Amino acid sequence: MSKIIIGVMGPGNDATSMDLQNAYQLGKLIAQSGWVLLTGGRNTGVMEAANQGAKSANGLTVGILPNNSTNGMSDAVDIAIVTDMGNARNNINVLSSDVVIACGMGAGTASEIALALKAHKKVILLNGDESSKVFFQNLSLLNVFVVNNVVDAIEQIRKILFT
Amino acid sequence: MSKIIIGVMGPGNDATSMDLQNAYQLGKLIAQSGWVLLTGGRNTGVMEAANQGAKSANGLTVGILPNNSTNGMSDAVDIAIVTDMGNARNNINVLSSDVVIACGMGAGTASEIALALKAHKKVILLNGDESSKVFFQNLSLLNVFVVNNVVDAIEQIRKILFT
Amino acid sequence: MSKIIIGVMGPGNDATSMDLQNAYQLGKLIAQSGWVLLTGGRNTGVMEAANQGAKSANGLTVGILPNNSTNGMSDAVDIAIVTDMGNARNNINVLSSDVVIACGMGAGTASEIALALKAHKKVILLNGDESSKVFFQNLSLLNVFVVNNVVDAIEQIRKILFT
Amino acid sequence: MSKIIIGVMGPGNDATSMDLQNAYQLGKLIAQSGWVLLTGGRNTGVMEAANQGAKSANGLTVGILPNNSTNGMSDAVDIAIVTDMGNARNNINVLSSDVVIACGMGAGTASEIALALKAHKKVILLNGDESSKVFFQNLSLLNVFVVNNVVDAIEQIRKILFT
Repeated sequence: MSKIIIGVMGPGNDATSMDLQNAYQLGKLIAQSGWVLLTGGRNTGVMEAANQGAKSANGLTVGILPNNSTNGMSDAVDIAIVTDMGNARNNINVLSSDVVIACGMGAGTASEIALALKAHKKVILLNGDESSKVFFQNLSLLNVFVVNNVVDAIEQIRKILFT
Repeated sequence: MSKIIIGVMGPGNDATSMDLQNAYQLGKLIAQSGWVLLTGGRNTGVMEAANQGAKSANGLTVGILPNNSTNGMSDAVDIAIVTDMGNARNNINVLSSDVVIACGMGAGTASEIALALKAHKKVILLNGDESSKVFFQNLSLLNVFVVNNVVDAIEQIRKILFT
Repeated sequence: MSKIIIGVMGPGNDATSMDLQNAYQLGKLIAQSGWVLLTGGRNTGVMEAANQGAKSANGLTVGILPNNSTNGMSDAVDIAIVTDMGNARNNINVLSSDVVIACGMGAGTASEIALALKAHKKVILLNGDESSKVFFQNLSLLNVFVVNNVVDAIEQIRKILFT
Repeated sequence: MSKIIIGVMGPGNDATSMDLQNAYQLGKLIAQSGWVLLTGGRNTGVMEAANQGAKSANGLTVGILPNNSTNGMSDAVDIAIVTDMGNARNNINVLSSDVVIACGMGAGTASEIALALKAHKKVILLNGDESSKVFFQNLSLLNVFVVNNVVDAIEQIRKILFT
């Protein structure tokens, strides 16, 4: 049976310091839970922080890269998937994740949440502003979960996976 | 020089009757303006209505299909692009459009708006609910235009293209 | 009903002068037959020559572009499909074509022939060397047609489409 | 630094018994060398055999799946990448592999070799017929290596990676 994969999505260069702290902790707790971390793989923002967090706990990390090489990849990615698909790779990010967590918000992250909901995946929103919570819960009350901190996010993942 | 392409995005099976009326009129006016209509190409909802509207005015229509054949395609599509990429084709929809209009709302449409904004494309929102206007204008005040009717949408396209 | 699309595939920078002459004539005859020409859309080699040939006869041309903009596009492309998928767009090229013609040979062209055969499309080989004829006919004797000149290629398309 | 990934490509349902034996041994030796095995991930042919071989030696296996779920996946895949891109995922297979081995031949495998060569990747041909050796060495004498058995294939990988 294949491993459980948790996708952490969030801004690159525009990530806030709160996004980065949360992403690092998420990565660490995902690794400590024995799950694989999946991100967009770049060496910036939420992707970088989550991968570093996961490696701090000896986790396994997968990066789904937008370009045609590993240039610009986080050096905390173990398994580099080179797509050369630009932002169309966002669909692969969410289809490959058992649960998707959005940590912060931006256009790329919004596309990942929407593509996840289109595929009937469950999405956890952490650290989003009020308008994003309202919008995505309007899109799918059933599959969107709003949490206020990293520990609640991990707890929510457990509920989704095991109940 | 290649032709101007206007992308009309919107719900499939979940389109409202208002979405459908608007999509038909948009397709017709896009054709009358001499522009090519681009949609997701399926025979349902906003895609079908916009294509029928464009053909009613002898326009040229392009359908970017999610599956590996033309099964399920609107019979008002002239140029069938068969992607076999599922919803990752949404990125092609917006990258290929000079301007994107969202007519109604749903998870697929939201992904197209977000991917368009990620690519710095200009997006016109028609017939969206309040929460979608707030959310997407928060994402990009510069590139999101809210209009209240089809005529204003066409006027906004002209402004974007020619000024 | 959507238009008949004929895909012309072949080398870019490495095209021979024979490839270019054939591609121009193919484009012209495809347009004169009332079919749409589809290529990889770039302003070089077989793509450029076929598009120029089609426009010389007032044909309609579709370019499936590998990058995230129309930079580097043939100025004889009417409908620009911007994929940002690199060579993965080769699969879209062949899935969208009713018949595929390979005009010359190279790694990209070989991938298009192979992807076409994988999708059970019919492929016409023009101007290929002996080893490519042997190899691809070994892969699929039923769906690979070898022709020696442009007129025979067009005749073969007619047989495939209408019998 | 990310892990070394070796891609094993080959037929699904049409694999010969020799292809399957070679694929199993390749998977096993790849795992014993400490490398990650990457395949197209399906539960048939060379993909299945290579994954089973790798797991017999406690290796780590990545499957790049063509569909929108893990249905039809080899149960020896550890990391399931769900692409929903059909055979366009073949480009991801080769871009993500440090070295590509073709074990047997078919249209899908041919597309992977050609896409790998297009991306200037090195490809090892094992168990191919004479026409495929001639064809692909004509395409790229520099990047195509023909070997006659699994041990030589592994030796060739070492030379490519470490010299």
